[in-house]
Amino acid sequence: MSRVILLRHGESEWNLANRFTGWTDVDLSETGRAQAWAAGETLATAGLLPQVTFTSVLTRAIRTLWLALDASDRMWLPVHRDWRLNERHYGALQGENKTDFERRYGAEQVHAWRRSYATRPPDLEWDDERHPRFDPRYAALEPGQLPAAEALADTVTRVRPWWSDTLRPCIEAGRDALVVAHGNSLRALIKDLEGYSDEGIAGLDVPLAEPLIYEFDRAGELVDKTTLTLSEE
Amino acid sequence: MSRVILLRHGESEWNLANRFTGWTDVDLSETGRAQAWAAGETLATAGLLPQVTFTSVLTRAIRTLWLALDASDRMWLPVHRDWRLNERHYGALQGENKTDFERRYGAEQVHAWRRSYATRPPDLEWDDERHPRFDPRYAALEPGQLPAAEALADTVTRVRPWWSDTLRPCIEAGRDALVVAHGNSLRALIKDLEGYSDEGIAGLDVPLAEPLIYEFDRAGELVDKTTLTLSEE
Repeated sequence: MSRVILLRHGESEWNLANRFTGWTDVDLSETGRAQAWAAGETLATAGLLPQVTFTSVLTRAIRTLWLALDASDRMWLPVHRDWRLNERHYGALQGENKTDFERRYGAEQVHAWRRSYATRPPDLEWDDERHPRFDPRYAALEPGQLPAAEALADTVTRVRPWWSDTLRPCIEAGRDALVVAHGNSLRALIKDLEGYSDEGIAGLDVPLAEPLIYEFDRAGELVDKTTLTLSEE
Repeated sequence: MSRVILLRHGESEWNLANRFTGWTDVDLSETGRAQAWAAGETLATAGLLPQVTFTSVLTRAIRTLWLALDASDRMWLPVHRDWRLNERHYGALQGENKTDFERRYGAEQVHAWRRSYATRPPDLEWDDERHPRFDPRYAALEPGQLPAAEALADTVTRVRPWWSDTLRPCIEAGRDALVVAHGNSLRALIKDLEGYSDEGIAGLDVPLAEPLIYEFDRAGELVDKTTLTLSEE
């Protein structure tokens, strides 16, 4: 049997600021840091000690992992960062204020960008300095691999090979894993794990910094799912 | 060309307490944290931005790496932890006060344990709770692989294969690397890199949290060595 702990990062500075974040590399707020520490304590109290950890290449996920590892006295665990666990890329919306955009494009359009499964926001221009091809963390990738905007459907398409080539082999080897990622990359994983419909997954909220525990049998089939919160301890 | 940055961890709580540390998992002091942050700032100011990082499985090295990555805005770099980069294992001396041991065994004996190349301190007993076989971070290793005490010569023997199977291929691929480790595991590396004699390397002091830069040509041969300190910037 193997357990996979999914953990969304703690509150970020832009969760507070009501701005579209996506791949913008925003750090945790003070509240987010405390949430991440508490998540690590919860895992330690529950005796949930993975042998391996995974995260995106974005600061808010990495810092959440660091704080959770520190709080659970597991700083020495192996960590694998992968850009495919990044948040959904929000295209030209990144950095913009959500209310401003509702005024300019209408609430219905903004809602579609935020919540429909397949509606892609406008692309970041190829020469926009925010384009990921200018970011050194993606220097080893071909520019054509990098998104300029994603619908949730695109995030599902990019997370699916990560599941197949990275997480699934880990489960089949009987290892317990901690995956610290983002609202939409976790939705993408959960969609396939739990068999959500396109509409169903777009409506699911993944809570900040609350461990979700998925148990798998030796054949790699999901057998149980629980949520771990401090109040349950 | 490839650069390897060697960085000893910042001051630990036991550097202050005058106790033998070895594999004891002691954290950084406040001073040590500030030193680690400053080392990261120094690397960023000098434009020394590696593509890959390596560290031991001990907290004081991992935290030094975390702080240096945070200060240089490189939290997303890949990190490979390896127990072979750990500090020299100090055997039964671990946790003991250096002055107490000098009173019990004489200054000459303690000096030999600390500073000779081949004198191994007394083993930790097999059933001693401090034996690394009881530590979950070494659970994947055979107990026979784990030291109960090491002379510097033993640390050299364990670091050498890490150089061959991990760091050297990275250099030959033209990648720049940051290695955050310990006084004696860095001595072990430097001995082979610079061709020190057994006596010579035992007398070398590796400074805390000061980046040492080694430059290699495409054939993997060492061509230059510099020390980077904040005052040089």
